[in-house]
Amino acid sequence: MNSQSNSASLPEKVASILREVVGSGSSISLHEPSFAGNEWNYVKDCLDTGWVSSVGSYVDRFEQMLAEFTGCKHAVVVVNGTAALHVSLLLAGVTEKTEVLIPTLTFIATANAVSYCGAIPHFVDSSEKTLGICPEKLSEYLTQIAEVRDGRCVNRRTGRIISALMPMHTFGHPVDLDELMAIGQRFCIPVVEDAAESLGSYYKQRHTGNFGLLAALSFNGNKVVTTGGGGAILTNDSDLAARAKHITTTARVRHRWEFIHDQIGFNYRLPNLNAALGCAQLERLPEALSLKRALAGAYREAFSGMAGLRFFEEPADACSNYWLNCILLDHDRISEKDSILELTNNRGLATRPLWTLMHYLPMYSACPRMDLSIAGDLALRVINIPSSPFLGKRYA
Amino acid sequence: MNSQSNSASLPEKVASILREVVGSGSSISLHEPSFAGNEWNYVKDCLDTGWVSSVGSYVDRFEQMLAEFTGCKHAVVVVNGTAALHVSLLLAGVTEKTEVLIPTLTFIATANAVSYCGAIPHFVDSSEKTLGICPEKLSEYLTQIAEVRDGRCVNRRTGRIISALMPMHTFGHPVDLDELMAIGQRFCIPVVEDAAESLGSYYKQRHTGNFGLLAALSFNGNKVVTTGGGGAILTNDSDLAARAKHITTTARVRHRWEFIHDQIGFNYRLPNLNAALGCAQLERLPEALSLKRALAGAYREAFSGMAGLRFFEEPADACSNYWLNCILLDHDRISEKDSILELTNNRGLATRPLWTLMHYLPMYSACPRMDLSIAGDLALRVINIPSSPFLGKRYA
Repeated sequence: MNSQSNSASLPEKVASILREVVGSGSSISLHEPSFAGNEWNYVKDCLDTGWVSSVGSYVDRFEQMLAEFTGCKHAVVVVNGTAALHVSLLLAGVTEKTEVLIPTLTFIATANAVSYCGAIPHFVDSSEKTLGICPEKLSEYLTQIAEVRDGRCVNRRTGRIISALMPMHTFGHPVDLDELMAIGQRFCIPVVEDAAESLGSYYKQRHTGNFGLLAALSFNGNKVVTTGGGGAILTNDSDLAARAKHITTTARVRHRWEFIHDQIGFNYRLPNLNAALGCAQLERLPEALSLKRALAGAYREAFSGMAGLRFFEEPADACSNYWLNCILLDHDRISEKDSILELTNNRGLATRPLWTLMHYLPMYSACPRMDLSIAGDLALRVINIPSSPFLGKRYA
Repeated sequence: MNSQSNSASLPEKVASILREVVGSGSSISLHEPSFAGNEWNYVKDCLDTGWVSSVGSYVDRFEQMLAEFTGCKHAVVVVNGTAALHVSLLLAGVTEKTEVLIPTLTFIATANAVSYCGAIPHFVDSSEKTLGICPEKLSEYLTQIAEVRDGRCVNRRTGRIISALMPMHTFGHPVDLDELMAIGQRFCIPVVEDAAESLGSYYKQRHTGNFGLLAALSFNGNKVVTTGGGGAILTNDSDLAARAKHITTTARVRHRWEFIHDQIGFNYRLPNLNAALGCAQLERLPEALSLKRALAGAYREAFSGMAGLRFFEEPADACSNYWLNCILLDHDRISEKDSILELTNNRGLATRPLWTLMHYLPMYSACPRMDLSIAGDLALRVINIPSSPFLGKRYA
């Protein structure tokens, strides 16, 4: 399907294929939202009734809809995905000066949430199959450095407790959850899923977020469902859900008029106005997901057989939301990554590289880590390409 | 103006006066927002253009409007007032295991923001004149327990540094800022204003929030300007403003596509959708303030001369927004507080007592504190009464 002559450069070829797939348009963004459903009705309803803030019917409704959609017993909505990660870790038992195993290949929120708990990120390598934590490498590594003492996992090298394992479903592609849950069980480490990018993604027919003790969703402006800014904590444990609601709403004890708080809580409430947007967005999620999968299919076909790179496809056992599509350069084409980014962006086709790996950032460079060579390699090779649902309309 | 017979009980008299002032209505809340201006237009514009999230023109516009209205050089909008307090303290130099002087008479966010910094709240007493920190008692107390060493204030009793003084303008009534700023200067303690309740309140003709190194505003649903949930950091220091913007937007370094973060930042961005609401609300703030002052005038007159309590009036040197109006029971009528709350709420007139004092809460009961007898006394005597701007229309 490549219309370029064989003599065209790789950047030219990539730009040309992207343009073929997405069609015309002067500025094609990486992921933009659409508000073509009940968004305006619900938001207007908030303004008309005056219920825009921390209490209101859309908050409850959005939580119920999320629970239903994901199959998780409980969803507690919060102000953004970072807040959801923070509280999920706290509720999983992460305390000061313990370590949390997270991928180095992730968005900054994953590592920052660990820091907010006073804990230390411990970086883990990724797999080229999922772009998420590599279970084989992690298992081998923990066998070397960790041991279980009195039901807790201890890092023998630092003497610190490893209090949680938090895999992230990169670009919506589920990690190998069966393997990671087994590692968590073997080493007595609770698993928390960073599902910020994977609303609508399934692992063995079960929605991501159902496997860990808790999971965090994000509804940032660039996600498949947006509330402007927002997030949610998912859990199948009713006690944890109640504690999540309590701690994210300033830990206030119910009373008709007294203000009593029984612990240090957070003001992480999602305003009703934003929840209203979420309800309307969620109604249209199945449609958005099918458009996104159609777009991914078009990319797969367009890039098939092309030399120098491949389109990244969902892992085995997974049905991905393809939140952000990406291509993976061959090793001998790594030097062309920046030219591809430059040319495509100059032509109004938004592309971007992986986030800077966490252990490359100054504030996290001294954190404990295993060998991170696969993530280091992926960081040189991955390029995200335009992924808005509406781009899939031509292929639906 | 009291239409009750003299033999009526105090609760009956209060309920009767409230009803006279606010007029009919089955459920009169403490403070409800109104969206009668451009709220719809601006929010719809966000949906129509797709700019609902973390970047968008209403964020910039809301910041400019806030700076103009308050006379502060810079306003940085954030996700809520608690986030504004947290970051203001961090930027003022509050670090782990230092102490921050705050009133015990405040909403929980003041104390929690100190905790988020890993610092320890140190509770200060209030004044019956302002309902905020009493400068005389604080000055006397610090003279006893604190000393300046190498340009920093040290609590001789605990050995810890006192890293900030954060007065709160209770119910919109400005504290005595001249006196408190002088204390801050004398003891080398930076002052941060908790101005969550005082948007539209002036001290000696200057808007609150202009006196401390930084200040925090709140736009919660019950405030004079609401964004659903939101807040802002105010400062006249350009360097601090730039750092506030950076740290509240994940500390991301500007780049066309790379994701580089240079410190542990926060995801405290206010969504554009909420900022749009704020712009429309702020356009109507002068009108809301004049309605609120008219309502306060009506209460003052209605309660004048009544035995057993008095209507709380703005302090000398201040022009208050009268965010929440309140009455103050005489000492010999303290036992009737609960009956007043019960009767008025049963009659659809929302009233409430002061927040539980911070040092009474389990997580803060062991924190350092001075004698807190005035706050303890006020907690038994203050009752908030309905304060929505629209209630002032009959008196404007």
